[in-house]
Amino acid sequence: MEMDTITAISTPMGEGAIGIVRISGEEALTIADRLYRGKMQLKEADSHTINYGHILDPDSGLVVEEVMVSVLKKPKTYTKENMVEINCHGGLTSVNRVLQLILNQGARLAEPGEFTKRAFLNGRIDLSQAEAVMDLIQAKTDRAMNVAMKQVEGKLSKRIQILRQTLLETVANVEVNIDYPEYDADEMTLELLKEKSAQVQNEIGRLLRTAEQGKILRDGLATVIIGRPNVGKSSLLNSLVHENKAIVTDVPGTTRDVIEEYVNIRGIPLKLLDTAGIRDTEDVVERLGVQRSRQLMIDAELILFVVDYNEELTNADVELFNLVKDQDTIVIVNKRDLDEKINMDEVKALAGEHPILTTSLVMDEGVDELEEAIRDLFFQGDLDSGDLSYVSNARHIALLHQADQAITEALTAVDDGMPVDMVQIDITKAWELLGEVIGDSVHESLIDQLFAQFCLGK
Amino acid sequence: MEMDTITAISTPMGEGAIGIVRISGEEALTIADRLYRGKMQLKEADSHTINYGHILDPDSGLVVEEVMVSVLKKPKTYTKENMVEINCHGGLTSVNRVLQLILNQGARLAEPGEFTKRAFLNGRIDLSQAEAVMDLIQAKTDRAMNVAMKQVEGKLSKRIQILRQTLLETVANVEVNIDYPEYDADEMTLELLKEKSAQVQNEIGRLLRTAEQGKILRDGLATVIIGRPNVGKSSLLNSLVHENKAIVTDVPGTTRDVIEEYVNIRGIPLKLLDTAGIRDTEDVVERLGVQRSRQLMIDAELILFVVDYNEELTNADVELFNLVKDQDTIVIVNKRDLDEKINMDEVKALAGEHPILTTSLVMDEGVDELEEAIRDLFFQGDLDSGDLSYVSNARHIALLHQADQAITEALTAVDDGMPVDMVQIDITKAWELLGEVIGDSVHESLIDQLFAQFCLGK
Repeated sequence: MEMDTITAISTPMGEGAIGIVRISGEEALTIADRLYRGKMQLKEADSHTINYGHILDPDSGLVVEEVMVSVLKKPKTYTKENMVEINCHGGLTSVNRVLQLILNQGARLAEPGEFTKRAFLNGRIDLSQAEAVMDLIQAKTDRAMNVAMKQVEGKLSKRIQILRQTLLETVANVEVNIDYPEYDADEMTLELLKEKSAQVQNEIGRLLRTAEQGKILRDGLATVIIGRPNVGKSSLLNSLVHENKAIVTDVPGTTRDVIEEYVNIRGIPLKLLDTAGIRDTEDVVERLGVQRSRQLMIDAELILFVVDYNEELTNADVELFNLVKDQDTIVIVNKRDLDEKINMDEVKALAGEHPILTTSLVMDEGVDELEEAIRDLFFQGDLDSGDLSYVSNARHIALLHQADQAITEALTAVDDGMPVDMVQIDITKAWELLGEVIGDSVHESLIDQLFAQFCLGK
Repeated sequence: MEMDTITAISTPMGEGAIGIVRISGEEALTIADRLYRGKMQLKEADSHTINYGHILDPDSGLVVEEVMVSVLKKPKTYTKENMVEINCHGGLTSVNRVLQLILNQGARLAEPGEFTKRAFLNGRIDLSQAEAVMDLIQAKTDRAMNVAMKQVEGKLSKRIQILRQTLLETVANVEVNIDYPEYDADEMTLELLKEKSAQVQNEIGRLLRTAEQGKILRDGLATVIIGRPNVGKSSLLNSLVHENKAIVTDVPGTTRDVIEEYVNIRGIPLKLLDTAGIRDTEDVVERLGVQRSRQLMIDAELILFVVDYNEELTNADVELFNLVKDQDTIVIVNKRDLDEKINMDEVKALAGEHPILTTSLVMDEGVDELEEAIRDLFFQGDLDSGDLSYVSNARHIALLHQADQAITEALTAVDDGMPVDMVQIDITKAWELLGEVIGDSVHESLIDQLFAQFCLGK
């Protein structure tokens, strides 16, 4: 496949010590050589070397930048194409200018994710590995990063390949049976088909059981803090944020005002919703009147419900709790440094199955216990085990569910005594669905869409 | 000089395709090797090579990142020390984690600018070159970047060195005269001293004449748009911003709300002050009542004063103009697409020497002429000439002024018939002041302070 030469800035936008402009494609070295002056031409340099020199503007002859140029010759590169990475002094003007000079020499501006897309199209990695590259970049905690890294390394791909191989062998066996009906091996074929399918379905089930946790690690646990005014919601927010350095992300394509705030709770990225609202006002009851706040609570995967140890439970407390009692909720009885005026038996009755903690957030007491409670609610203590093979991507999860369904249909068909070639269709469908996870049988438009979510220069 | 091994993240903070963690110092390779697994140990690798491999957490044995590691062995490196640059997949968690692992292995977190400081302390570059590195990163226009690049390359340093050499030879000549008075060469010595000093002073004067322009290119031209409500200030702001992509910078160490907005006007970075104020309200007269707005006008180096073509001049116009008439002001008569109700003769009388332009900003007319007027006001058409040797740094400018003053004192002393060793003191002082520009005679605390203004990882 003939592809053109692409270029992009690969470091985050901003003033920094180093800025990198990346080029990939057949002409990468030729184009760079038209701008570079150093000891020797880049195309003469060995692969995987770093070359000191200058970037000149060919029109004016002016020295534009002092650079270190990485020469990476195909095929042992990120894209499996010739690659050049120009390390500039950093700064927006510098990298933009070097980029512009490269574009003038005939390279095309890369689309988001296009370098990784080429790595995929050129067969260096499969689709699930490519997707994990972006997960790796966006990982909010070490734990989430570990999960993404395993996937980059191809751990998920290997499991999927084994499952597909099993299904393929099963189908092949059925084929033999259809093509040579004289063998009359029907009974045996069906037994084998059932056994192998069940085995695949079992493994899919195992993968799907990791999905909830995988998704939380990848996307964060959407969390809302609620409670009456002055029970300590801001204190709780501050405790969580201050003890665990918050990661604040600008959401691309939106205004500056929309930010997402994450805190790392024992490896779980807590995505705090509506922190601006909590910081602005304590009057959460009033806010709850509006549709937006209700939507927030519906979207939340974890509710931190705060009541006041120093006051009796009120109707407002009960009303609030009733809104969220069907969700994963932790009841926090705050201000235990003050006199006990709340009736803890009433709290227990209200909370039911939900965990209850007493804290004194101003005294910094109870935060550790809260963090443990959050972890136990979602990871039942197995977060520190060695197995990092979570399925975390919503696309993968959906495909696994569909494949599971297809196999169930195949098994039902067998039990219903349907003709063996009908069963074969369902098994083939499961095989194709699993193929979509690793990009073996994916439509081009889906691939374009997946890579468009990448950051520029990757 | 024995220095420890330092490390820092060298790419801007944010999600990006590539993130770099840099290490410099004697132990750089040893430390990296404790975390790196690849084909061979990094210390065995050739200098200036790129090595594919993985970063492992030595405690858990887990693969943390897939990396490309640049090995740069002393002395041909940025710091003249052993250096390692670990290119990660990017992302905040990834680079922070790799950084943490390196810190755990005994490297120290680098202070801002410490890599460049080492390049200076180890004699690879002088102080004016080091300062230009930061100018290069912060350059807002290509032109500003060209000026910084010349300085990085040592063009200013060379001129300073020549001046110092001349002064040194002059002093040496005087020394001979003092040490061997029997030669009685007094008259000749003084003539030579005067001639050489005048020559140096002449060159300093030439450098200082570039300073105003140099400073504008480096720091931007602080600009304020003023005018009565509804004369078109927002339109003017939008025209300038939209036709020339605005560069918006978060000011480090401040809240998100304080941003600086620059537009590139024919190579001149216009730093627009109080754009938020203009966007929020047209009621500039009211804002002028407060101290802050007066301060803005005092700080401004360029005033864009807007009046309405479609209305008669008012007292408010005249009052406003009187506040700024002693500054560089361009009078913009806007809305020329509407009927002429303003008396242009009155405008001319009011404006005096200041340039007047008529525009129709909603029709996009007159913006080109305005940009030309701005350039002509500060660069008199010589912005496109080849000479890029501007003095741009306020510290350098101050030192040149002081050196100029010292030489004047020397020349006065000669004319006053002062003893030759008194003259020598002034010349030596000028020599020392010039030395401070390139860091030859600078106090350590000043050096610390200069590099502290750098970005992290540089």
